[in-house]
Amino acid sequence: MSDLKSTLIEWRRDFHKHPEVGFLEMRTASLVAKRLTDLGYEVKLGREVMNPDYCMGKPDDEETAEHYEWAKENGALEEFLPYLKDGYTGVVGILDTKAPGPTVAYRVDMDALPIYESTEESHVPKQKDFRSVNNYMHACGHDAHTTIGLGLATLLSENKDQLRGKIKLIFQPAEEGVRGARSMVEAGVVDDVDYFMALHIGTGVPFNEFLASNNGYLATSKLDVTFKGLASHAGGHPEEGKNAMLAAASAVLNLHAIPRHSGGSTRVNVGELHAGSGRNVIADSASLKVEIRGENSELNAYMKNYAEEVIKGAALMHQVDYDIKLVGEAVNAVGSVKLAEKMFQEAEKVGLKCQLEENKPSGSEDATYFINAVQKQGGYATYCVFGTNLAAGHHNEKFDIDEESILPAVQTLFETTKSLTAE
Amino acid sequence: MSDLKSTLIEWRRDFHKHPEVGFLEMRTASLVAKRLTDLGYEVKLGREVMNPDYCMGKPDDEETAEHYEWAKENGALEEFLPYLKDGYTGVVGILDTKAPGPTVAYRVDMDALPIYESTEESHVPKQKDFRSVNNYMHACGHDAHTTIGLGLATLLSENKDQLRGKIKLIFQPAEEGVRGARSMVEAGVVDDVDYFMALHIGTGVPFNEFLASNNGYLATSKLDVTFKGLASHAGGHPEEGKNAMLAAASAVLNLHAIPRHSGGSTRVNVGELHAGSGRNVIADSASLKVEIRGENSELNAYMKNYAEEVIKGAALMHQVDYDIKLVGEAVNAVGSVKLAEKMFQEAEKVGLKCQLEENKPSGSEDATYFINAVQKQGGYATYCVFGTNLAAGHHNEKFDIDEESILPAVQTLFETTKSLTAE
Amino acid sequence: MSDLKSTLIEWRRDFHKHPEVGFLEMRTASLVAKRLTDLGYEVKLGREVMNPDYCMGKPDDEETAEHYEWAKENGALEEFLPYLKDGYTGVVGILDTKAPGPTVAYRVDMDALPIYESTEESHVPKQKDFRSVNNYMHACGHDAHTTIGLGLATLLSENKDQLRGKIKLIFQPAEEGVRGARSMVEAGVVDDVDYFMALHIGTGVPFNEFLASNNGYLATSKLDVTFKGLASHAGGHPEEGKNAMLAAASAVLNLHAIPRHSGGSTRVNVGELHAGSGRNVIADSASLKVEIRGENSELNAYMKNYAEEVIKGAALMHQVDYDIKLVGEAVNAVGSVKLAEKMFQEAEKVGLKCQLEENKPSGSEDATYFINAVQKQGGYATYCVFGTNLAAGHHNEKFDIDEESILPAVQTLFETTKSLTAE
Amino acid sequence: MSDLKSTLIEWRRDFHKHPEVGFLEMRTASLVAKRLTDLGYEVKLGREVMNPDYCMGKPDDEETAEHYEWAKENGALEEFLPYLKDGYTGVVGILDTKAPGPTVAYRVDMDALPIYESTEESHVPKQKDFRSVNNYMHACGHDAHTTIGLGLATLLSENKDQLRGKIKLIFQPAEEGVRGARSMVEAGVVDDVDYFMALHIGTGVPFNEFLASNNGYLATSKLDVTFKGLASHAGGHPEEGKNAMLAAASAVLNLHAIPRHSGGSTRVNVGELHAGSGRNVIADSASLKVEIRGENSELNAYMKNYAEEVIKGAALMHQVDYDIKLVGEAVNAVGSVKLAEKMFQEAEKVGLKCQLEENKPSGSEDATYFINAVQKQGGYATYCVFGTNLAAGHHNEKFDIDEESILPAVQTLFETTKSLTAE
Repeated sequence: MSDLKSTLIEWRRDFHKHPEVGFLEMRTASLVAKRLTDLGYEVKLGREVMNPDYCMGKPDDEETAEHYEWAKENGALEEFLPYLKDGYTGVVGILDTKAPGPTVAYRVDMDALPIYESTEESHVPKQKDFRSVNNYMHACGHDAHTTIGLGLATLLSENKDQLRGKIKLIFQPAEEGVRGARSMVEAGVVDDVDYFMALHIGTGVPFNEFLASNNGYLATSKLDVTFKGLASHAGGHPEEGKNAMLAAASAVLNLHAIPRHSGGSTRVNVGELHAGSGRNVIADSASLKVEIRGENSELNAYMKNYAEEVIKGAALMHQVDYDIKLVGEAVNAVGSVKLAEKMFQEAEKVGLKCQLEENKPSGSEDATYFINAVQKQGGYATYCVFGTNLAAGHHNEKFDIDEESILPAVQTLFETTKSLTAE
Repeated sequence: MSDLKSTLIEWRRDFHKHPEVGFLEMRTASLVAKRLTDLGYEVKLGREVMNPDYCMGKPDDEETAEHYEWAKENGALEEFLPYLKDGYTGVVGILDTKAPGPTVAYRVDMDALPIYESTEESHVPKQKDFRSVNNYMHACGHDAHTTIGLGLATLLSENKDQLRGKIKLIFQPAEEGVRGARSMVEAGVVDDVDYFMALHIGTGVPFNEFLASNNGYLATSKLDVTFKGLASHAGGHPEEGKNAMLAAASAVLNLHAIPRHSGGSTRVNVGELHAGSGRNVIADSASLKVEIRGENSELNAYMKNYAEEVIKGAALMHQVDYDIKLVGEAVNAVGSVKLAEKMFQEAEKVGLKCQLEENKPSGSEDATYFINAVQKQGGYATYCVFGTNLAAGHHNEKFDIDEESILPAVQTLFETTKSLTAE
Repeated sequence: MSDLKSTLIEWRRDFHKHPEVGFLEMRTASLVAKRLTDLGYEVKLGREVMNPDYCMGKPDDEETAEHYEWAKENGALEEFLPYLKDGYTGVVGILDTKAPGPTVAYRVDMDALPIYESTEESHVPKQKDFRSVNNYMHACGHDAHTTIGLGLATLLSENKDQLRGKIKLIFQPAEEGVRGARSMVEAGVVDDVDYFMALHIGTGVPFNEFLASNNGYLATSKLDVTFKGLASHAGGHPEEGKNAMLAAASAVLNLHAIPRHSGGSTRVNVGELHAGSGRNVIADSASLKVEIRGENSELNAYMKNYAEEVIKGAALMHQVDYDIKLVGEAVNAVGSVKLAEKMFQEAEKVGLKCQLEENKPSGSEDATYFINAVQKQGGYATYCVFGTNLAAGHHNEKFDIDEESILPAVQTLFETTKSLTAE
Repeated sequence: MSDLKSTLIEWRRDFHKHPEVGFLEMRTASLVAKRLTDLGYEVKLGREVMNPDYCMGKPDDEETAEHYEWAKENGALEEFLPYLKDGYTGVVGILDTKAPGPTVAYRVDMDALPIYESTEESHVPKQKDFRSVNNYMHACGHDAHTTIGLGLATLLSENKDQLRGKIKLIFQPAEEGVRGARSMVEAGVVDDVDYFMALHIGTGVPFNEFLASNNGYLATSKLDVTFKGLASHAGGHPEEGKNAMLAAASAVLNLHAIPRHSGGSTRVNVGELHAGSGRNVIADSASLKVEIRGENSELNAYMKNYAEEVIKGAALMHQVDYDIKLVGEAVNAVGSVKLAEKMFQEAEKVGLKCQLEENKPSGSEDATYFINAVQKQGGYATYCVFGTNLAAGHHNEKFDIDEESILPAVQTLFETTKSLTAE
C-alpha cells in the first residue's frame, strides 16, 4: 500500500503541474486512457462517451486547436490524441468480471480552472516543484479526484477475483461551470448502472471525515449574454448609436429584481459585465456572465425563463440585438441514503468518521445528472465527500490539499465496490 | 369704444366664471355661435369644422354626457347644443365681404384647465365675483382669447364696408394638451386661407408690448402609457404576479436615458406615475403620463419612436401588457416675418411697442398645425402675443390678466385685417 | 347556549355594520369596554394599555378627530370616549378569580379595512342588512374575533367559580398593517401572563377544523417612503427641477434587486407608487408603500437596512429629500407545541378536527410580539385558527364568514381556560 | 522648398512609426527639443512648461518607467530624457527676434492613440514601411502636427531677419482625452502671447481647403469612476457581498437620465464598463469611463455636478466605496474672427480655399484653454484646420493623411507669422 500511496502522490503532482481546463483535458485524458488500458480495462473515450449535442460552454475550435498543440508538447500520448483532439475528452474504463452481479460506477472529474497559481514560497506546490506550468490551476482538487479514480482502477484490477458484476470508472471533463456531465449521460454512459457514486475532496469537511448523501445541490443555468448595438461618436452623433451599455445596465438591474419565489430558494447573479470600446463612443457591445439557480429544477426554470424575458426586453428597449448562450447547466438531486449508509460501513473500516450530509442548498454540481439518471432507472446513487486539510479555500490561488487523504479515499471506494458487488 | 370695452370685460368675466375644459366647451361654444350669428356671420360648428379622427385625448362618453348636463344647467344655448353635445366644440365664423380680396383667418382658443381657482380675497376674480363656479379654471387666459375673438367679430361686422375678401374667425377647443387644432386643420378649416394669425395674451410679455413671429415652439407628443400585469400576494406568492411596478420603473429610467440628439433640442418627461393597489400586493397596473418634445418634428419623431421601444421592452421584461395612447401632439413652426411686420405697423398705431420674437424653444402650441398648413399652400402665418400684467404665472391658481389689454388687442387685429384685405 | 349564539351573531353583525380602521376603533372599543364592565371585569383602556411610543402608522390628528365625530354619532358610548378619543383604542378586561393559579390571556383584534363592501344582493351582509354603513369593511373577520372575545368573556364571567388564577382578555387595535400589538406589549399588558393565545378565523382552514402552533409568520417592516424634489416646467427648464420620479424609479428597481439571503426566505415589495403632479412638470414628489419581510427578525433587519441604504442613495442621486416612516412592524414567532396540544384536547371535545400547523412562511401578524414576550418570560404562547366557510378570500369586498363557527370557537377557548387554570 | 517637403515627409513617417501616447511622448519630445535647439531656439521642456497639478489622466509611475525604457531603446535622445523621464513631455521653442513686435504662438500636439494599426497591404504606412512599431498608432494626425511645427520652426529660423517680435512654438502632450493643455497654460506658457493659433489636419475638411475660427468645441470632463465592493459566493452567501455591479448599473442608467438643460446642448456617455471577476461571484469592483459635455463650461459643470451625485448615490445604495478621478477636461472657446481673417489672407496666397467655420458643437479640444487664456489677456486666438484627403476617419485603424497637405500648412503659418509680426 505504501507503494501505491507514493504512486498516487506522484500522479497527483503530475496532474497538478499540467492543468487543463474543461473540454481541453487532452493530456490528462490520454494518460488516464493509457493507464486504464495497461490495467486491462476496456477503454472508451471521446465521442463514444460524450454526446456533442449536450456539451455546454465548449471552447471554440481555435482555442481547442491551440491547446492540442500544447498537449502534444507537454506529454500527451499520441496514441489517444485522435479521439480527444476535438475536445471530447471524457474517458470511461470498464472492468467486466464476467461473474453475475450489479454494475457499479464512479465519477471523477479532471478539469482545472483559469486561475493563476500562487508563486509564494509558502505554497507547497511551488516549494515541491509541482506548481502549474501554464496559466491554469487545479484549484478545486480535480487532480486528486482523477488520481483517486486511477488508484481505484489499480486496486480493482489487482483484486479482480474478489469482485463480481461490472465496474465503470467515469472520468468526466468540464465539471467546472457544470458543462460536461450531461453529455456523458446523454451518451448512455450510466444506462446500465445500478450503483453510482460521485466524489469530491475537501469542501470544508475535516480531515479523516467522510460525508455522503442528501447534498442540497442547486439546479443552475449559466448564461453568456451579449448585446450587440452600433457605435457612434458620443459627442458628435449620440443618436446614431444603438446603445448596448444601456441595455446591459437595464438587464443587470432587472435580472437581480426577478421576484423571489415562495416555492424555495433561488439565486441570480450577473458576475461579469464588459461593455463598450472607448469613453467617447456609444457602446456597441456588452457581454454579461449570468448565473441563475433554484432549489430544484422547477425553480431554476422559473428564474431562467424570467431572465430570458428580461434580456429580450432590455435589448428591445434600446433596439440592440441580443444573444443568450447556455454555457452550463445542472439539476438538483437527492442522494440515496441507503447507498450512503453502505459507504459509511466501508469508510469506517478505513478509519474515517462518517456523517449523513444535510447541507443547505448553495453550490451546484453536474454529477446530479448521473445521480438522477441512475435513480430514475431504479438504481442507487449518491454524492460523497472525503475531508482533507485545505491550505486555502476552493478556487483560491493558494488552494492545496493534504495528500494523506488520497489513499483512504481509494480504499473506501475499493471496499465499497467489493461490498456492493458481493451482494 | 368704451362701450365695446365694457362689453368685452363683461364677456371675459362670464367666460372666466364658467370654465370648460378641452372638448367640453359646450356653453362657451354655444355663446360664441350665438353672437357670431347675431353679428351676421355664417357659422359652422361641431363635426363640420372638426375631423373626429384627429381629436386627441378627448374625454370619454360618460364624462362628455355629464358635462353636457352641466352646460345645459349653466346657460348653454339649446339652439346650438345638438352640434356640440358629442364634444366637437369648435366654431368658425365666416364674414364674406363679397369684394375680391384675400382670406384672412384668426385662431383663438376656448378651453380652461383642471385647476381649482384660488379662494383668497386678494384674487381679483374672487373679489369681483367672477371666480369659477366649478372645479376648472381659466388659468391661461383663453377666456380673454375668446373675448378678443368676439370683440374682433364685432368690429369687423360693424365696419364690413371698409373690408374686402373673406374673414374667418376660428374658435378652437382643447388647446391645452395640444389636442384640438389638428382636427380643425384636417377638416379643411384653413384650406382657403391666405393670412393666418394665432394669438396669446401674457406669457411674460410686458403690458402694452406686442410680439410676433419666429416662436420656437417645440414639436411634442403626449403619451398615456399603461402597464397591465397580475396581482398576487407579495409575501405568499410573489412569483405568481406580473409586476407592472418593475416595468414602470424600468420605463421611467430608460425613457429619461434616451440619448440626446445632435440635431437639436429634445425633451422627455414622465410627469406622473401611479402604480399598484396595496403595500402587500404585487402591482398589477401602472399608468404613466409621458411627454416628449423635439426642436422640430423629426427630433420629436426620434424621441417618440425610441420611447415606444422603451415601453415595449419594459413590458416584455416583466411579461406585462402595455398600451400607449397618443393624447396630444403638436408640430413646430416658424412664423412668417413678413406678416409679423405687417402686424407691427398696425399695433404701433394702437400704441403697442413691437418686437420680433426669437424665443429659445421650450413650450408647445398646436396653432403650429394651422401655421404650417397655411404656409404650405403659399400663405403667410404667424403666432403673436399681446403683453399684459399677470397676477401670477400661467397655470397658477392665482393667474389673472389685466383687462386693459383686451381692447388694444382687438383693435390691433381689426386694423391688421383692414390692412391685409385692402391689398 | 342558543341564547348566547344568537347574541353573538347579533353582536358580530353590529360590529360588521360599523367598521372602524386601525387606531380609530372608538365605537367598537367603547362597546367592548361597556360589556366587560357589565360582566364584572376590571377594564383598562387607552394609554393605560398602549405605549404611544410604539404605535406605528397611526392616523394623524385631523383624521382621528374626524372619526371621533363619526363614532359619537354612530353609537359610541360617551362614558368611555375620553380614553379613546386620541386613537389609543386598546381595551383589556381582567377577571381575577382570587384563587391561586396561572394568568391566561387571549388576544382578539378589532380593526377593519379601507375596502368598500360589495353591494351585490348575493352578499349576505347586504341581504341581511348589516352591510357597512361607511366606506370601511370588516373583510378579514375581526368583527368575529371581537365577538368571540366578548362571548368568551361572558362564559368566563358566568362560570367564574369553575376557574382559578387570572384571565386577561386583550382587545387589540390596528392589527392590519401590524401596527398595534407592539404598543400593548410595551405597555406591559402581558408581563404577568403564563399562557397566551391569539386567534383568527378562516385563513383557508375548513369549517369545523382547528389549527394551532408553529405558524411561520414572517418578520416584516412596512415603510412609507417619500421623495421630495422641486417642480419645474419639463419643456422650459428641466434642469431647474429636482426629479423625485427618477429617484423613485431607481429606488423601486434597486429595492427589488436587494440580494437574496442564504439564511432563509426574504421578501420585498413596492406595492404602491404615486409620483408627480402633471405631464409637463418635473415631478416634485413621489410616495412609495414598501414592505419587506424575512423568515426571522435577523433576515428582516438585513432587508430593512439594505432598503434604507437604497432609498438614501436614490435620493442622493437626484438631490431630492427623502423620508422613511415605519408604519408597521412584526417579528416572527414559533408557537408552543405544548400549549397547542392542550388546546386540541379541548377543541376535540367541542367537535373540532385538530392539526398542528406547519405553514410555509408567507404572511405576517403582530400577535408575534405577544407570543415572543410571553415565551421569553417562561410562559407558553401560540397562535390558533378556527376554520369556517368563506364567501370570498380575506380582504375581498365579498368576504363573509359562516356565523356557525363563532360559538364553537368561544366554547373551545372557554374549555381551554378552565383546563389551564385548573392545573 | 522641395527639400523641406521631403524632410517633412521623412520626419512625419518617423513620428508615425514611433507613436507614443499622452504624457509618454519622450522620444518625440526629445527629437523636437533637439531640432529646435539645432535651429537656434531657446528650448524649455518638462516641468518648466507644465504645472504637474493640472496634468489629468497621467499614466502611473510604473507605466511611465516602462515606457522610458522603450524610448531609450527606440531612439530617444539621452540629452533631453532627464527632463522628460517623469512624463512631463511638453516642449516650447522660443525665437526672439529682439526687434519690437508682438508675441505669436502656435500649438501643435504630439500624442498618439492606443489603437492597433492596420496590417493590411492597402494601408500606406504598411506598404511604405512606416507602420507603427508598437501597439499605439498616430490615428489622428498628431504626427503631421508635430512635423508642421518643426517645419514652421525651420522656415522661421531660416528667415528670422524678416520677422519682428517673439515666436513661441508649443509642442503639447496628451491632447487625446483633453489632458495636457491646461498644465501648460497653468505653467504660464502663453502669459505673454498676443496671437495664438492651434491647428489640426483633416477632420473632414477637403484637401486644399482651410478653415478657421468659431469652432463650437464643447466643454467636457472625462471621469474614471470605480466602485469597490466585496466579493462573495453568489450561490452560497449572496448577502455577504457588496455588489459593485448593481451600483454600476444604477449609475449608468441614471447618468444617462440626467435631465436635459434648456441652456444648450449637453452630452453624457458611459463609454466603457468593466465589472466583476467571475460568473458565480458577487462583483466586488466595477470601473466606468464616463464623459460629459456641455455647450459651454456652465452646462458642463451642471452635468459634472449631477454626475457626481449620481455616482455617490449609486455607491450608497449598495454600500460600496467609490472613486471619481478627473482624467481629462476642456472648456469651450470661440475663435477670434479677426485673427481667422488674417490667416485667410495668407492661406489664400498659398493657394488654399478658406472659410469661416461655424460647426455645430460636437467634439472637444483642450486648445480651448490656450485660446481663452490669450483672449482673456486681450490677445487674439483661434483654432484652424488644414484639409486633407483621409484614407479613413480619425481614430480608425486605417487612418492616414495625404502628405501633400503638410507643406502648404507650414507655409500658411510662416506667412501668417510674418504678417502678424510685421504690424
